[in-house]
Amino acid sequence: MNPSHLLGPVLVLGSGLLGASIGLGLRARGIDVVLSDPSPSAQAVAVDIGAGRAFDAAETLVPELVVVAAPPDVTAQVVAGALLRYPSAVVVDIASVKASVLNELTAREDITEKDLSRYVGTHPMAGRERSGPVAARGELFNSMPWVLCPSEQSTAHALKVAHSLAIDLDAVVFRFSPEEHDGAVALVSHLPQVMASLVASRLQETPSNALSLSGNGLRDVTRIAASDPSLWVQILGANAPQLLEILKGVRTDLDRLINTLSAPTAPGARLDLAQLMAEGNAGQSRIPGKHGGPAQQYSWLTVLVDDKPGQIARLLTEIGEIGVNLEDLRLDHSAGLQVGMVELSVLPSRRVLLVDELTARGWKVIQ
Amino acid sequence: MNPSHLLGPVLVLGSGLLGASIGLGLRARGIDVVLSDPSPSAQAVAVDIGAGRAFDAAETLVPELVVVAAPPDVTAQVVAGALLRYPSAVVVDIASVKASVLNELTAREDITEKDLSRYVGTHPMAGRERSGPVAARGELFNSMPWVLCPSEQSTAHALKVAHSLAIDLDAVVFRFSPEEHDGAVALVSHLPQVMASLVASRLQETPSNALSLSGNGLRDVTRIAASDPSLWVQILGANAPQLLEILKGVRTDLDRLINTLSAPTAPGARLDLAQLMAEGNAGQSRIPGKHGGPAQQYSWLTVLVDDKPGQIARLLTEIGEIGVNLEDLRLDHSAGLQVGMVELSVLPSRRVLLVDELTARGWKVIQ
Repeated sequence: MNPSHLLGPVLVLGSGLLGASIGLGLRARGIDVVLSDPSPSAQAVAVDIGAGRAFDAAETLVPELVVVAAPPDVTAQVVAGALLRYPSAVVVDIASVKASVLNELTAREDITEKDLSRYVGTHPMAGRERSGPVAARGELFNSMPWVLCPSEQSTAHALKVAHSLAIDLDAVVFRFSPEEHDGAVALVSHLPQVMASLVASRLQETPSNALSLSGNGLRDVTRIAASDPSLWVQILGANAPQLLEILKGVRTDLDRLINTLSAPTAPGARLDLAQLMAEGNAGQSRIPGKHGGPAQQYSWLTVLVDDKPGQIARLLTEIGEIGVNLEDLRLDHSAGLQVGMVELSVLPSRRVLLVDELTARGWKVIQ
Repeated sequence: MNPSHLLGPVLVLGSGLLGASIGLGLRARGIDVVLSDPSPSAQAVAVDIGAGRAFDAAETLVPELVVVAAPPDVTAQVVAGALLRYPSAVVVDIASVKASVLNELTAREDITEKDLSRYVGTHPMAGRERSGPVAARGELFNSMPWVLCPSEQSTAHALKVAHSLAIDLDAVVFRFSPEEHDGAVALVSHLPQVMASLVASRLQETPSNALSLSGNGLRDVTRIAASDPSLWVQILGANAPQLLEILKGVRTDLDRLINTLSAPTAPGARLDLAQLMAEGNAGQSRIPGKHGGPAQQYSWLTVLVDDKPGQIARLLTEIGEIGVNLEDLRLDHSAGLQVGMVELSVLPSRRVLLVDELTARGWKVIQ
């Protein structure tokens, strides 16, 4: 393992999933981590799992870095407290929205420009399937984007320390201004979240037999509608201005679509629908492909497997033997019987070979 | 293989992906299939791949069943032609919307009630990743839903033959009235399609650095925005009334959300946002789980793998050795570096064992 970039100690304020994961990751690099959480039990659990040592008010702590891992609502307040209490520390936060935190800090009368120069807003974009310190993993940020959003006041030193945090946790560093960041996440994260919820909320009173026809399309569009409301209420509230502009654009398109569907045989109706679909095609194709590279056109095939343990492993092993690289893989759950459907994505030039070889080996290639 | 239910011959009108796949599937059961397509090359390809024998106008064909696999726009017309030309045949279609086809048929002066009694609308809900006869597979319908939508005029015999078609192609049969069907697919298929396109179309002019923060949420919500416009324009047009009602409901919710975000700190704003998220949670949890069973709560974990061939196969093989059943599997493409992220879903009671065992075997469990 490379030597760490941070020297420590690092004080982590908030030992939920993210704070405790940060602690674990830094401890794995031998960095001294001190944990503090308003909830004694959350703090105790985080200490128990090895995320750091418990904060001790009697200790004279001079942290190199303070990481504020508090809920978005109280982040600015906790950052301010840390800037004032640790006058030589760099302070970062990890909240999902950046401009609102910075604005709140800037508006505070107790925070000077010099204090603010030691603050860098950041946003690690790591998974949130679970919550709480029990779910923490030091590798949580491994290869995930970590966005650094220095303000105009942030010093080069503060940015360097923030950068070191992300690097020591093996993240991929991005740099945006706070406003750019909020605009970007409004589009790539908050918009899909609310749209998924809007679709899913339509299903509340659907007769179950209608839902029995659900396919992967519905599942994909509504997957993130299972998200935790309490966190998202804070995020959406904090990024309201950016999201609002985007949603107004969506509403304009939706109005146009509703108009068109009100008179579907009118001249131009077909063209309107085709245009919406084509614009969707165009936008979707701009999403980066695997590993952030250009969106690549892969070819898909679907293989039916018995729903017995080890079947998918066997299929993948044989694909390895055949010598075709798998670009992507998904399971289809629309099927009614006890079968599994595996969707495989390969380079277009390899598809025929793979289909022929799998078929020859007795696999059922459905499409 | 069980003996087939259909006796044949079966005349398939339209030898694109679906028609040719039907042909292949029935030929595999030894049923005599005759193919006809307005495009001589599409017909020739379908014959070449073994989907059936070419239609011969000189032959006196007395089909048991005529399957109309034409585009939605011309389906009713082709059904009518078949009902008139083959007065003893059952005629089915496979278009994605049912009421519009039936209404168009019923309105025709050349079609009597007796003719109509031999017609059953159906809808096989099978994958559409590819198109054209070259992509056809006899197993396309294997374990996929096939909805039968008899009208009030359909005879029991006609329904039986339609049922036999679906069974002989190993599909899972559902039965809906035409209106019930259209309402169901409007919700579970057409709504997610247009919403995905509405989200994706917002990305057309996004700066690429914003898109570099794209995660699985955006990818999931916009995946089906890559759909083929020409087909969808016909489907949306034909099912406009059902979809319209649903979209008006969405627009009401969107208006409410936009209002709330315009004053995010107003009293009640938080509650509004929480309510939208909670309704999304509730709707999403009603979508059936694996194999159509109740929506089950599974536990997820994420494992990092080197992006080398065979890694995922090795991981799955070891999971098989550990003895934990994999409920679902997805690849995460947000990562920037040359790593693969595999998301695994297991029964909650098995999660700890799996995490411990994988970690002991040297796998990097991120979350």
